Amino acid sequence: MLDKDIIEELIDAFSNLPGIGKKTAQRLTFHILQKAKDDGLHLSATLKNVIPNIKMCKKCRNLTQNDVCSICLDKARDISRMCVVENPADLLAIENNTNFKGIYFVLHGLLSPIDNIGPRELDLELLNKMIKDNNVKELILAMNYSVESDVTAHVISEMISQSDISVTRIAQGIPIGSDLNYIDSNTLATAFEKRTKY
Amino acid sequence: MLDKDIIEELIDAFSNLPGIGKKTAQRLTFHILQKAKDDGLHLSATLKNVIPNIKMCKKCRNLTQNDVCSICLDKARDISRMCVVENPADLLAIENNTNFKGIYFVLHGLLSPIDNIGPRELDLELLNKMIKDNNVKELILAMNYSVESDVTAHVISEMISQSDISVTRIAQGIPIGSDLNYIDSNTLATAFEKRTKY
Repeated sequence: MLDKDIIEELIDAFSNLPGIGKKTAQRLTFHILQKAKDDGLHLSATLKNVIPNIKMCKKCRNLTQNDVCSICLDKARDISRMCVVENPADLLAIENNTNFKGIYFVLHGLLSPIDNIGPRELDLELLNKMIKDNNVKELILAMNYSVESDVTAHVISEMISQSDISVTRIAQGIPIGSDLNYIDSNTLATAFEKRTKY
Repeated sequence: MLDKDIIEELIDAFSNLPGIGKKTAQRLTFHILQKAKDDGLHLSATLKNVIPNIKMCKKCRNLTQNDVCSICLDKARDISRMCVVENPADLLAIENNTNFKGIYFVLHGLLSPIDNIGPRELDLELLNKMIKDNNVKELILAMNYSVESDVTAHVISEMISQSDISVTRIAQGIPIGSDLNYIDSNTLATAFEKRTKY
């Protein structure tokens, strides 16, 4: 037995995180204690510094340390184009991989009556207000494809159906490098149906 | 862009750890910030509490928060049987999976001239002293099988060749559930040669 009280406590603390099993937690713990104490202390300090200071942007619900996030504060952004995403990780993926220079709205979830997630939990009222306040012309729904996403996309588009805002949804199709044999049948059927001129 | 200074700092802090790529670091960061702030703060506090207090046991080089580890302090242990392991993780694996009730010696590495790891780095002198002090009768070499392990095992057994200590090494062979087709040829050849009576 190692000195359980102290080393196993650290293993357990890592195991609590999603996707970190007992073996990985052990590996991280021993790596830190044997070879990378500085990295461990840096992680400790960063967690302690970041966690209490993080909140939702009052405008777009992005994660931020201020009342309003840096994207909403950025004067160079085109506020007439708004992209709706499920969560901050999706926002980061779009920022890192596209040249979109509009603003965002982060839902922090998808409508799911079975999980008690309704329009209030996603603050669709704030979304509606931001669309009007910014005089949005194009609304891009950048959610993944799933039943909940479809419902959420439908409800949002209904919400602004009286306006002349152009509502688009990111394309569904075959990802680069994937094998038609292994793609799910719904995606393949949709990609076939929505074939584009070559 | 998210508020880089604060969220990306946490992503980077996770990425520093071995086996944690950028994507996993993002997933952990967003999970903590969105759903598990308490787990994150607990991890922070545990790292800060454990790291500065960890040291090597003066007797066996196990990791401990005290001068001597709990195994060496345990009067119920049979000090005449000593198990030599490469690192504390291997010690934990033996504690958790065997009924060995002797004592340990942790090398914290294997002899490797190319990496400048010699007898001094592994403190083989301390090992020799502990073997004599405890009047060890059986020395179990519980290292993995590799070139460095073989060299290390050879040097240790030479070191005590003048004594009548029984030196054993954990068995090499086919692991349970593995496929003969996929096992490396050295292991298969050794397992065949060292076949046991059925």
